[in-house]
Amino acid sequence: MKIRVLPMIQELPDEWRPYTAIVIDTLRATSNIVTGLAAGASSIVPCLTPQEAEAKRQLGDLLGGERDCLIIPGFDLGNSPFEYQSDAVKDKRILMTTTNGTRGLKAAEKADRILVCSLLNAPVCAAAAYGRQQDVVVICSGTKGSFNVEDGLTAGLFLHEWLKICEEHPQIDDFGLTMLHFYQTTNSDIVNLLMQCDTGTRLIRLGFQRDVAYCSQVGCIDLVPVLMDGALVPLHLAENQDLHDIELAPIK
Amino acid sequence: MKIRVLPMIQELPDEWRPYTAIVIDTLRATSNIVTGLAAGASSIVPCLTPQEAEAKRQLGDLLGGERDCLIIPGFDLGNSPFEYQSDAVKDKRILMTTTNGTRGLKAAEKADRILVCSLLNAPVCAAAAYGRQQDVVVICSGTKGSFNVEDGLTAGLFLHEWLKICEEHPQIDDFGLTMLHFYQTTNSDIVNLLMQCDTGTRLIRLGFQRDVAYCSQVGCIDLVPVLMDGALVPLHLAENQDLHDIELAPIK
Repeated sequence: MKIRVLPMIQELPDEWRPYTAIVIDTLRATSNIVTGLAAGASSIVPCLTPQEAEAKRQLGDLLGGERDCLIIPGFDLGNSPFEYQSDAVKDKRILMTTTNGTRGLKAAEKADRILVCSLLNAPVCAAAAYGRQQDVVVICSGTKGSFNVEDGLTAGLFLHEWLKICEEHPQIDDFGLTMLHFYQTTNSDIVNLLMQCDTGTRLIRLGFQRDVAYCSQVGCIDLVPVLMDGALVPLHLAENQDLHDIELAPIK
Repeated sequence: MKIRVLPMIQELPDEWRPYTAIVIDTLRATSNIVTGLAAGASSIVPCLTPQEAEAKRQLGDLLGGERDCLIIPGFDLGNSPFEYQSDAVKDKRILMTTTNGTRGLKAAEKADRILVCSLLNAPVCAAAAYGRQQDVVVICSGTKGSFNVEDGLTAGLFLHEWLKICEEHPQIDDFGLTMLHFYQTTNSDIVNLLMQCDTGTRLIRLGFQRDVAYCSQVGCIDLVPVLMDGALVPLHLAENQDLHDIELAPIK
């Protein structure tokens, strides 16, 4: 199997297909998606714009997301994982729009299957992707077209966990190997790294230090969001038969 | 000062200007340029296509370059640094076209000044760029639109050397900080890393193992190529007055 890691959102050539896409936006979109589904939200629908989210809203739905790290006026939820952990999300469908994470999901649309990854769930995400026995493209959403540390680190963790469980060593591209090395040489210091990186310092300046600390936790949630008919749902609840067949490999 | 590092060739937004560009294509274009000028070539003219190189050829000029790592039919020089080290290049103008390196130079065309960097000359290149006291964009040429290990490592070395001589810590972007960490955690093992990376293994398969070993040497050439009127010349020979004024900071 081949694994490619993209440092930022970019066009994927058609010849890469078929593949499983792993979409990462660690601070904070994909951490929130994992958290919200773990807290019992029924599904999360990624929307490119606030207007799209509002247009799709049905009775009982919640609107969530951010622009420039801040809650969108009129929305129920911003972009803090603690909002997605609350009882308010239980059994709710959430229409979510964020600057980079939603664009990362969009970039993956030609993949056979799209899984959502953050530091919180990277181990179980690696196991689920490995179970598919298909080439993988890991998309670091980055920040406004540039690479960011937190997504690169999460990609490195994903690969690190993959190598723990795989029987045969996959062919990993140069960027993936570099991110694997990055994770393996910094993994005792993730919180500090996220606090000091570009997004982290911006979030701390805006008062979201607790969010950064929360999103720095490795492997604390055993849930993989998968995109099904335009909505993110927990992999184990997905109705698609081929998803039911996946036997999750043992973690650690 | 701000330093940005691009993982691959990409469009640079106009608002980034003004800046000094550092162009890297470690295996092998920028290593060859540094080597050729150090061996006494009078100048090296980057050309986008073999046709452009042939059209510009004048009596006494040499044609050099590669497509898919191999010499172009009818050219005098391929893409091996040992060809650029020979007496044959002395006092010659070389018209050079390579797959990624030439495109990296093209991407930098809006910079105030373009300097050429490889592992061979990264320390003196960092000193020359630092002497300009201007924002810097480091362009890793990569391989056919993707990041490669050897250019990332060279960018990390460039930053490492900059930090040794600077009085005030520059603002380095997330990708630059990651490459700095990459270099600093692997710098005892550069030859092996280049031998094992994607380009390195391809070159070894084609019989160019010596080239990879040669290009892995850190700081063995004290020469900075600079682009002047479409030709690369050694910085100390550049006629432009503001270049004469640069006092190179002491190395190591």
